[in-house]
Amino acid sequence: MSKKNQYIFIYATFPSKKTVLSVTEKLIEKKLVVCANIREHDAIYSWNKRVYEEKEYGVFFKTREDKWKKTKALILKKHPYETPVILKLRIRDYNPGFKKWMDDSLDDKQLKFKK
Amino acid sequence: MSKKNQYIFIYATFPSKKTVLSVTEKLIEKKLVVCANIREHDAIYSWNKRVYEEKEYGVFFKTREDKWKKTKALILKKHPYETPVILKLRIRDYNPGFKKWMDDSLDDKQLKFKK
Amino acid sequence: MSKKNQYIFIYATFPSKKTVLSVTEKLIEKKLVVCANIREHDAIYSWNKRVYEEKEYGVFFKTREDKWKKTKALILKKHPYETPVILKLRIRDYNPGFKKWMDDSLDDKQLKFKK
Repeated sequence: MSKKNQYIFIYATFPSKKTVLSVTEKLIEKKLVVCANIREHDAIYSWNKRVYEEKEYGVFFKTREDKWKKTKALILKKHPYETPVILKLRIRDYNPGFKKWMDDSLDDKQLKFKK
Repeated sequence: MSKKNQYIFIYATFPSKKTVLSVTEKLIEKKLVVCANIREHDAIYSWNKRVYEEKEYGVFFKTREDKWKKTKALILKKHPYETPVILKLRIRDYNPGFKKWMDDSLDDKQLKFKK
Repeated sequence: MSKKNQYIFIYATFPSKKTVLSVTEKLIEKKLVVCANIREHDAIYSWNKRVYEEKEYGVFFKTREDKWKKTKALILKKHPYETPVILKLRIRDYNPGFKKWMDDSLDDKQLKFKK
């Protein structure tokens, strides 16, 4: 299957709602992702030999495989963490309407967002 | 691996808790899925050249690969959105009790739900 | 790809925040996982011919493929449910910092957690 027929989740975590919104809007404007599902969670993690617990935001971005590299690069550039978490999961199948929505949104060369 | 030994998440989004409950109960009654994990999230998405933000519900259904097509069809039929999102993710491994729970629930021909 | 270069999500559900915290701390101390993202959800499921709905906690643990078996075994041992749900999802790609964080945390033989 070519990259044009593969769709992915990109899972990333952020320290605040403000950062999530700013990164997500940039990604949608640049037609790198089509949709983000965002929810708060508790993160418990090991870092420099200590265990931390804090609130953060986990986001599932939906996009197509050929947008992975540029999406990862833009999140890395905008992200306030020293070590962000940007992970790709493969979507194995989907309804036809989902594919059309992704392709229409990602490939429209005339697309200019109205504010 | 045959479809009978593969288990999947089906991820779908819904506009209200009421819709989630009604679709989930139907899917469980028809032995198409065994379990649903449901939480509210914020969705930001591109649609017809505008960016929208709204509350919705994201659901991870757990089932077996051979139930994918019928589950997708039933969600599509019951779903209020013009373009629903119904995505399949493959579960790569699991504990033995999970497999037994899935198979017992999906294959029991005598199963009649008590109200 | 060897198991040393594959990273995974382990998704598991728990009845209470207390159980999640106790299991997660044990897994991090034993260097079986590096991070857990935890949120409450509603679970609807079929069990012994009845449909149940209850609050529970869903956790995405992040770790490396070679830690899967021991992590699964430890969760099974500590888990209060008769049939826990412990599922492996494959992470298909990631940012380089994520890999370094995982490997540094999982492989440090001198690691002793400060309380």
